Amino acid sequence: MDYKFAARMTAMKPSIIREILKSSAGGSVIPLAAGNPAAETFPLEAIRSFTESILLENPVAALQYGVTEGYEPLRERLMAHLQQRFNVDTTDNALMVVSGAQQGIELACKVFCSEGDTIICESPSFIGSLNTFRSAGIRLAGVPMEADGIDLEQLEAALKREPNVKLIYLIPSFQNPTGITTSLEKRKGIYALARQYDVMILEDNPYGELRFQGKDVPALKSIDTDQRVIYVGSFSKVLSAGLRVGYVLAPDAVIQKMAVAKQGEDVHTATLPQMIAHRFMTEYDYDSHIALVRNVYRRKSELMLQALEQHMDATVTFTRPDGGLFLWCELPASVPMLDYCKQAAASGVAVVPGNAFLVDESEPCQALRLNFSTPSDEQIVRGVEMLAQVFAQQKARR
Amino acid sequence: MDYKFAARMTAMKPSIIREILKSSAGGSVIPLAAGNPAAETFPLEAIRSFTESILLENPVAALQYGVTEGYEPLRERLMAHLQQRFNVDTTDNALMVVSGAQQGIELACKVFCSEGDTIICESPSFIGSLNTFRSAGIRLAGVPMEADGIDLEQLEAALKREPNVKLIYLIPSFQNPTGITTSLEKRKGIYALARQYDVMILEDNPYGELRFQGKDVPALKSIDTDQRVIYVGSFSKVLSAGLRVGYVLAPDAVIQKMAVAKQGEDVHTATLPQMIAHRFMTEYDYDSHIALVRNVYRRKSELMLQALEQHMDATVTFTRPDGGLFLWCELPASVPMLDYCKQAAASGVAVVPGNAFLVDESEPCQALRLNFSTPSDEQIVRGVEMLAQVFAQQKARR
Repeated sequence: MDYKFAARMTAMKPSIIREILKSSAGGSVIPLAAGNPAAETFPLEAIRSFTESILLENPVAALQYGVTEGYEPLRERLMAHLQQRFNVDTTDNALMVVSGAQQGIELACKVFCSEGDTIICESPSFIGSLNTFRSAGIRLAGVPMEADGIDLEQLEAALKREPNVKLIYLIPSFQNPTGITTSLEKRKGIYALARQYDVMILEDNPYGELRFQGKDVPALKSIDTDQRVIYVGSFSKVLSAGLRVGYVLAPDAVIQKMAVAKQGEDVHTATLPQMIAHRFMTEYDYDSHIALVRNVYRRKSELMLQALEQHMDATVTFTRPDGGLFLWCELPASVPMLDYCKQAAASGVAVVPGNAFLVDESEPCQALRLNFSTPSDEQIVRGVEMLAQVFAQQKARR
Repeated sequence: MDYKFAARMTAMKPSIIREILKSSAGGSVIPLAAGNPAAETFPLEAIRSFTESILLENPVAALQYGVTEGYEPLRERLMAHLQQRFNVDTTDNALMVVSGAQQGIELACKVFCSEGDTIICESPSFIGSLNTFRSAGIRLAGVPMEADGIDLEQLEAALKREPNVKLIYLIPSFQNPTGITTSLEKRKGIYALARQYDVMILEDNPYGELRFQGKDVPALKSIDTDQRVIYVGSFSKVLSAGLRVGYVLAPDAVIQKMAVAKQGEDVHTATLPQMIAHRFMTEYDYDSHIALVRNVYRRKSELMLQALEQHMDATVTFTRPDGGLFLWCELPASVPMLDYCKQAAASGVAVVPGNAFLVDESEPCQALRLNFSTPSDEQIVRGVEMLAQVFAQQKARR
């Protein structure tokens, strides 16, 4: 049969990262392309013991239908956590549990945007979110990144130029893919522009707890005086990605609409994972655990940066993130980026071509994304050595 | 702030069932309105032991990101199960795990329908699905139900009349809300019409395993010679609803698009619940468990039917389902249905007004839905007695 898919779906393809990961799933390929949290950070013993207690003490609640907004004790704990740690004023806001941050992003898009509406985003930005927006038939307007966040002049130009802008989508801390953190000054500037042009902000903060150096920068949600920020958080990088538990803090009226939309998607997030997340936040030493996770990522990022400095050609530049999972490499014009990534994969190191993260993938791009959370320490060192070798070969050929 | 939601979302409200359940959550109200599986059917000991084994033997796979299509061993087992039990030919088809059947329905709508397209459905039909379609901006065309399924003449009339029909949505076995099972003859008739008018069929079969009397009727998917049926199944009614694990069997090309759409919604379904479902299907006596579940629902449905026959006024008619969780009551014209449901709730029995399941809620409707899986045996008997009393009072007043 010849299937007549909806027009906005015809062009949609599986993400390029996914394809790279599939093609390099041979086992011997060094995984610098993924974005998996380091498995050694999973608190396995605690998860075992929490799960056992839940299924002994409260099995029916864990296995029966729950309410769409989420497991109430977890919602309360998360509200308190966002107040305490991120100084967020939760008055007139509500918190909903979602099936991973991705669903929070998708629901925000669903309730605010019609087909053909515009979302302004950082470019590059997280390919998962860009694809979510694309499959909703959204027009994407990318604004280039600077070392301290989105280019404010170009953001204002986009706000003036673009029709029907419904959301500004941002990953202000340890951005995926660049590792860049938006400065407080820029956050204030972004917020002022959002007010001026009356647009909502979608703040995606999956890496917020993963700062391993420097000082915290307040969340956009913490300066949200007129209730225009939708804040999305996640347990994927602090507890477990496979449990698929994220959350959204947003104005009451927005959460009400998002709950109706979520009801039509998956009724509610699986309850057992929510209950595990709740015990993790209330019965575990959350702060010590976060400190442990930060230590792992600090060590891994330093290892990768040292290896890059030691082995990589000096014409290759890279960001030095203060947290998160990624850094962003720029090749000199002399070595075409896509050829380089293909050659790296063929040599046994998977990296993601930077154009995958652009609003327009066909734009010229010399960057690539490196992940340091998934590979082992040995793989980081060996992977960067191999990347350096491939670069030297490619450079010599030109 | 005055939020400018997308036009198709402005009219969306939380489901009326949800509101009824909230308002009757006082504890003393008898729950004949819900659709929860009977908690006594949850295989608690097995779930405890499977979960313990998984977290001991394979914890990282359970907690790390997984692939969008689902946990491979579960996908394989489900394919084999659908072949064996429902005689489904899975050639050129693929199976994807979803976060409850609801997500399968939503994804089918997302990949085939644009805003303004039409879905033909049974009327009445499952309110959750209708709301999913509504929040996608779909035009719904309802076709009345007869005792053996949808009215074929009116289905053909709708196929001729309606513009841009992309899907025919059906719950052929033990339909929610009516309890009606579509006959094999009608299934063949529906399939022939779908071929003739070149439309896809979305077969929603969450209750397929819950037949407690009569003979199995083949699934529409089992007569799908030209690959136009998308089959959606679920663990919610045979294992646990709170784990949120469902599945879709559909032609390869359709699953590929649905996987891209799912990636943008929740990346993948939580892995631990998928692994529990897999062990349930491979290490448990699945057939004995299904027999146990059927026995529970047979007993509960008989209890409700006996109580209705014994206590309810003879002018009230009701369906006699061969499986599933629901039956459908029709009141005589002399007692207005909505007043009756309100009075029942005030007296302490929650039921769902039938118009909630109509494509057009404002159509005249004298029916209401009764659920026999959620209440205890005592609640079933007492609930029906109270419904009969309220009916007698209402009738006497007219």
